[in-house]
Amino acid sequence: MRHFLKTNEWNIIEEGFHADYLRQSESIFSLGNGKLGQRGNFEEKYSSDSFLGSYVGGITFLDPTKVGWWKNGYPRFFSRVPNAPNWSGIHLRLIDEELDLATWSIEKYERRLDMKSGISYRDFNVTSPKGHTLSIHIEHIDSMDQKDLCLIKYSVSSINYKGKISFVPFISSNIKNERANYNEKIWSIIQAETTNDSAYLWVQTKREYSQICSAFTYQFFVNNQEVYFSPIKIEKETAVGYSIGTSISPGEQVTLVKYVSIVSSLDYDRSLISQAAIDNSKKAKAEGWDKLIKSHKDAWKKIWEESDVIIDGDIEAQQGIRYNIFQLNQSYTGDDPRLNIASKGYTGEKYGGNTQWNTELCCEPFFLSSTPDTNKAKNLLIYRYRQLDKAIENAKELGFGHGAALYPMVTNNGEERHNEWEITFEEIHRNNIIANVIINYAEISGDESYIVKYGLEVLIAICRFWSQRVSFSEQRKKYVILNVTGPNEYENNVDNNWYTNYSTKKTLELTIKNIERVRELYPSEYTRIREKIKFDEKEINRWQDIIHNLYLPFDEKLGIFVQQDGYLDKELKTIDSIPAGERPINQHWSWDRILRSCFIKQSDVLLGLFIYNKDFDLDTIRRNFKFYEPRTVHESSLSPFVHAILAAQIGEEEKAYKLFLHATRLDLDDYNNELEQGLHTTSMAGSWLVIIFGFVGVRVTNGKLSFNPNIPKKWNMCDFKMHFRNRSLHLRISQKDFTILLYKGEPLSIILGQKEYQLEKDKWLIEIKK
Amino acid sequence: MRHFLKTNEWNIIEEGFHADYLRQSESIFSLGNGKLGQRGNFEEKYSSDSFLGSYVGGITFLDPTKVGWWKNGYPRFFSRVPNAPNWSGIHLRLIDEELDLATWSIEKYERRLDMKSGISYRDFNVTSPKGHTLSIHIEHIDSMDQKDLCLIKYSVSSINYKGKISFVPFISSNIKNERANYNEKIWSIIQAETTNDSAYLWVQTKREYSQICSAFTYQFFVNNQEVYFSPIKIEKETAVGYSIGTSISPGEQVTLVKYVSIVSSLDYDRSLISQAAIDNSKKAKAEGWDKLIKSHKDAWKKIWEESDVIIDGDIEAQQGIRYNIFQLNQSYTGDDPRLNIASKGYTGEKYGGNTQWNTELCCEPFFLSSTPDTNKAKNLLIYRYRQLDKAIENAKELGFGHGAALYPMVTNNGEERHNEWEITFEEIHRNNIIANVIINYAEISGDESYIVKYGLEVLIAICRFWSQRVSFSEQRKKYVILNVTGPNEYENNVDNNWYTNYSTKKTLELTIKNIERVRELYPSEYTRIREKIKFDEKEINRWQDIIHNLYLPFDEKLGIFVQQDGYLDKELKTIDSIPAGERPINQHWSWDRILRSCFIKQSDVLLGLFIYNKDFDLDTIRRNFKFYEPRTVHESSLSPFVHAILAAQIGEEEKAYKLFLHATRLDLDDYNNELEQGLHTTSMAGSWLVIIFGFVGVRVTNGKLSFNPNIPKKWNMCDFKMHFRNRSLHLRISQKDFTILLYKGEPLSIILGQKEYQLEKDKWLIEIKK
Repeated sequence: MRHFLKTNEWNIIEEGFHADYLRQSESIFSLGNGKLGQRGNFEEKYSSDSFLGSYVGGITFLDPTKVGWWKNGYPRFFSRVPNAPNWSGIHLRLIDEELDLATWSIEKYERRLDMKSGISYRDFNVTSPKGHTLSIHIEHIDSMDQKDLCLIKYSVSSINYKGKISFVPFISSNIKNERANYNEKIWSIIQAETTNDSAYLWVQTKREYSQICSAFTYQFFVNNQEVYFSPIKIEKETAVGYSIGTSISPGEQVTLVKYVSIVSSLDYDRSLISQAAIDNSKKAKAEGWDKLIKSHKDAWKKIWEESDVIIDGDIEAQQGIRYNIFQLNQSYTGDDPRLNIASKGYTGEKYGGNTQWNTELCCEPFFLSSTPDTNKAKNLLIYRYRQLDKAIENAKELGFGHGAALYPMVTNNGEERHNEWEITFEEIHRNNIIANVIINYAEISGDESYIVKYGLEVLIAICRFWSQRVSFSEQRKKYVILNVTGPNEYENNVDNNWYTNYSTKKTLELTIKNIERVRELYPSEYTRIREKIKFDEKEINRWQDIIHNLYLPFDEKLGIFVQQDGYLDKELKTIDSIPAGERPINQHWSWDRILRSCFIKQSDVLLGLFIYNKDFDLDTIRRNFKFYEPRTVHESSLSPFVHAILAAQIGEEEKAYKLFLHATRLDLDDYNNELEQGLHTTSMAGSWLVIIFGFVGVRVTNGKLSFNPNIPKKWNMCDFKMHFRNRSLHLRISQKDFTILLYKGEPLSIILGQKEYQLEKDKWLIEIKK
Repeated sequence: MRHFLKTNEWNIIEEGFHADYLRQSESIFSLGNGKLGQRGNFEEKYSSDSFLGSYVGGITFLDPTKVGWWKNGYPRFFSRVPNAPNWSGIHLRLIDEELDLATWSIEKYERRLDMKSGISYRDFNVTSPKGHTLSIHIEHIDSMDQKDLCLIKYSVSSINYKGKISFVPFISSNIKNERANYNEKIWSIIQAETTNDSAYLWVQTKREYSQICSAFTYQFFVNNQEVYFSPIKIEKETAVGYSIGTSISPGEQVTLVKYVSIVSSLDYDRSLISQAAIDNSKKAKAEGWDKLIKSHKDAWKKIWEESDVIIDGDIEAQQGIRYNIFQLNQSYTGDDPRLNIASKGYTGEKYGGNTQWNTELCCEPFFLSSTPDTNKAKNLLIYRYRQLDKAIENAKELGFGHGAALYPMVTNNGEERHNEWEITFEEIHRNNIIANVIINYAEISGDESYIVKYGLEVLIAICRFWSQRVSFSEQRKKYVILNVTGPNEYENNVDNNWYTNYSTKKTLELTIKNIERVRELYPSEYTRIREKIKFDEKEINRWQDIIHNLYLPFDEKLGIFVQQDGYLDKELKTIDSIPAGERPINQHWSWDRILRSCFIKQSDVLLGLFIYNKDFDLDTIRRNFKFYEPRTVHESSLSPFVHAILAAQIGEEEKAYKLFLHATRLDLDDYNNELEQGLHTTSMAGSWLVIIFGFVGVRVTNGKLSFNPNIPKKWNMCDFKMHFRNRSLHLRISQKDFTILLYKGEPLSIILGQKEYQLEKDKWLIEIKK
């Protein structure tokens, strides 16, 4: 854990310049708008270590697979998020000096991210080696209103400097990827041009031929008065830009506003792309800074109106949950089903910017309930539907047939991009969370159109996979699922991982239920699907057989589900036996030692108890929690929030709060000592889930919404909105009372504790806690 | 399987030129002398596909590890056998044409390897595109007498050509490795020089700074008359050589003899290395071709006198077994404990020229009994002793302490060079075969000096490893060995692999026995060892506890040892269910499908029944054989010979013969369709083991040699020598009688069938079969 940021309700503040934590700070201050994003890099030159990163949604680079020993079935390529040409650069030059925070002396440095408005500020005074002191103020946004725009205002006031000063705004492709095999060059330059009023850089990735064009124009102000000097044009092969200068005296101020438009071949025909970027940047300049900032702020205001969570009495939790909501909305806006949410959002390159099951586990339930716009959750499902053909192809590569689908572990376009056999081929439980969210979407949103139009096909393809993937053990007279890796990746190639087996049984059950429902309520759609995918209802017979005879490891003596065959043969230590200096174990222990130990990377059995929560009584959850939680090292961001929810459910209040704080401030406090690589964007949704499912105890049972609130002792009040079947609810929960308002939609009956209440529109319901 | 070679008792013959099988032919016709070796490459230019390879013992190149996902504990480097500068080249030029078998027309092509003399011949007529016809005869040896010498005689007779002809003998470093990560350049050139009477090329590998210097001189003959013309010198950065020419008319002959000396920094101080190579090549020339050929032939004669196996009535088997004995002796001569036997000998680059447990499994018993020179077997053991420190270091890296040793899976110098976690960290049974051969060596050779001086330290270090590596299962109340890969590499990360557990128990038992023996018979040595390695006899208590309580999976119903926990939960098909087009499965199935199947790559349980054969009764062996053999695909060369031995033991004669032929002609008939990569050198010893342990039924029980012969029906007679405790025995076994002669050493009592016989020196014992 590391603290170098101030706690504040609406802001992330770095006070004083922390050169040693620059990469961490760059991760934290990342900006984005769902379409593009960038790390919190300095606009000006910085000659010391830094991790420059700008990323554009849907643009990938296929990197030839690197493995020591090839296994049949490995994909030929891994996909990388290519580090795009840096569009933020604005160098600042005095007559013969250049601003560089690595070498100039710095005073009163403050970096602040205003989450309410989505604006990143930097304010500081600097003195050059020659003694010239300047005061600098910077504002930077990625527009939430016009998704191709990045806008930067860079103001410099002279304290004691008299002489020539110039800004050098530029776009440069002279960047490198933090991660790529074989040191291949990622970008080919198509064109780089600087004219009098705009400059653009147009590049293309190898192999996939994805294109990005960034263009910019600018305004220059002296003492807040716009002036126009003919600039010096910069036009190199790898960079375009200008040098714009004037003379300045103490007390005077110069300001540059940079209007950048970043467009890609995802949205534009390649013949129009450069003109689009140029036109958009010019249009932005014509609209002007103030208007653009206003529309950006308005967009954020709308998001917060729907999605804010107010926590009174716990400023750390308050800042953390807002930061998580902020980053999730920066990474995904839900208007394009071709885009998904990478584990690191637009804040780093680890995991190649690919989609993983994190999306379904964390983000889908967040976007499903935190906004009235059901498209956000639905487009994540459509993303998977669009890749169904490739999931079928993927299963085929591994030897499965008859329309069986295995969704990839990580993907950019539906093809598998991972290449550790124990994960790629074996961590197949991922199929089930995809099935689960399809069913959840209909249940929570009340919108059945996805299942009917797309989802049932996905469900059947997944069941077809399981139907072939299970095998029958003559010895046990049971179906078994052999050679899998469960959610806990500190075990590989195990037999009968309980989570995998149980989630498979549930997938089969819920699919059959949904087949019956669609057949009954949407008969013509059902016929269409059946014909399209040649579905024979007799297939269900085998599924039923599997449902009834699938082996589920259970230990009678301990009364717990057993993580996998043989798990109880291990030395069953608890994590308090690990010396402090050896955590996280993945940074200290050899891989075989990790595999042999009983320690669990991330919730596995307990994940099943969270996802299929309604199937289990409190005692079962408690017994399993008490057994597995003390053996879980939480060395994945997908873990603490799950345990926090279950801890809250079984009344382990302290534990629940501790795990919640871990999940909520994972990046702000750098729990896993890996913040420099970027944020844990997808799992940020987990903290929101802890509040909703853990502290407020939200459940949906047979279509009915219930609450069982028990907020942390420290909190005076928790206030948030949630959305359920075309209704919007405003909740305010204190230690004393539970208040709920139905502010949009038809009347709704809810259950609070054991009691049922009818909510009428615009009437607050207040229930005092006994 | 592929046949393109003629069967012949003493020769390997390729009749007619098989351009499509050139790489295969280059593998088959490989030459070597234990110190260096080379593939059967053409001396002259060949412009089509070929795999040029020359290798020098003990010279390696460290290649940075290439993996997709790093696991803690991986070694930083993989070691490669660097493809040395090609020292065999002799180009042949006419006035404006150059001999090239890829483009010239060829007649009467015969390539022949005379195994008796260790000489490779090529004879053919060629006609150039311009119609010039030549008759060519080539002889090539790697001297078995002077291990730094390679000698080539290249004779050309003109049929219809009149004009200028020249030879261009050269050494060139313009070669590439078939296998290397990152396309790094392997060789730096230190010096390349051509003088009037010799030329040398001196090179060095990166990182390890191993050096090779090859020097040569030559003789030139016209119509068998030596002549000297001043040559044209070639001295490029990467090549040295000469062009030596004359004029020739139809009926005339020119001959070049090339004397190459190849020396390395393994044997020479770096300041003397180039002079040594030059001197040696000149010395060779002074001795002359005839004398050098004679001493080479004599060396081979001595090997065959000791090691030949005569099979009468089965020319395929005869050729196969001689080829195997020939290649083993080309790869290892046993006079240098720094050298070992790479899986591919000096015939290819796969597996990086590293030492694997193949050596102990196959080669050690071969060299132990096929020659009276016990140093050959002993030096293989000393190789491991010299690396004990690194094996202890290796175990330490993985978290083990107190002098525990884990020998590497593959190594060039004692450090682990493998990087698949499931093998590197988990295929730890390798430790036990190393222990086993230490004990076997003393038993078969009668020489206890190795155990006393070195071996006991190794045994104790290995037992210390197991003592920490086993864990106690509270559930089973047994010790278990979790997370291993057994010999069958089509299963990874399994629990309680029977072979691993059983061999561990045996290692502990035999070590304790040997500790007791050394303590009793060599008390001062015992004290020395105890103090050196801080051995506390109390350690034995835990070992005893493990011996008595180690879990050994056994199925009561089937009466078989179970390969690993859960194996019987698989779908227990047999290999006849695999469609013919899908064999070998490793070239047709995805890796996960292979893992899930019950199919066994190579003998696993059965390997234990072979190695610890005396512990098991025939019924047990039969039951296990009948269960496992039909599920074994033998996609490793370490497998067929083991099954052949057991099949012979249980009287499955046909099966035994079929598997023997598979093992014996694996490369000659290219069973695994991978001959182009080089030979399966180490496992070649397996075919010899089948004859000895399988067909002749040799066993040693309580120090007594016994025989239980039953040779294949097809064989009239099998005649060979074997060596046991300072005695040399000559055996001749026919369908009717068993004949044995003790021709060296003290009298010996042996058991034949159930009966004991006393052998006296130089008296044949003949026993007629009932």
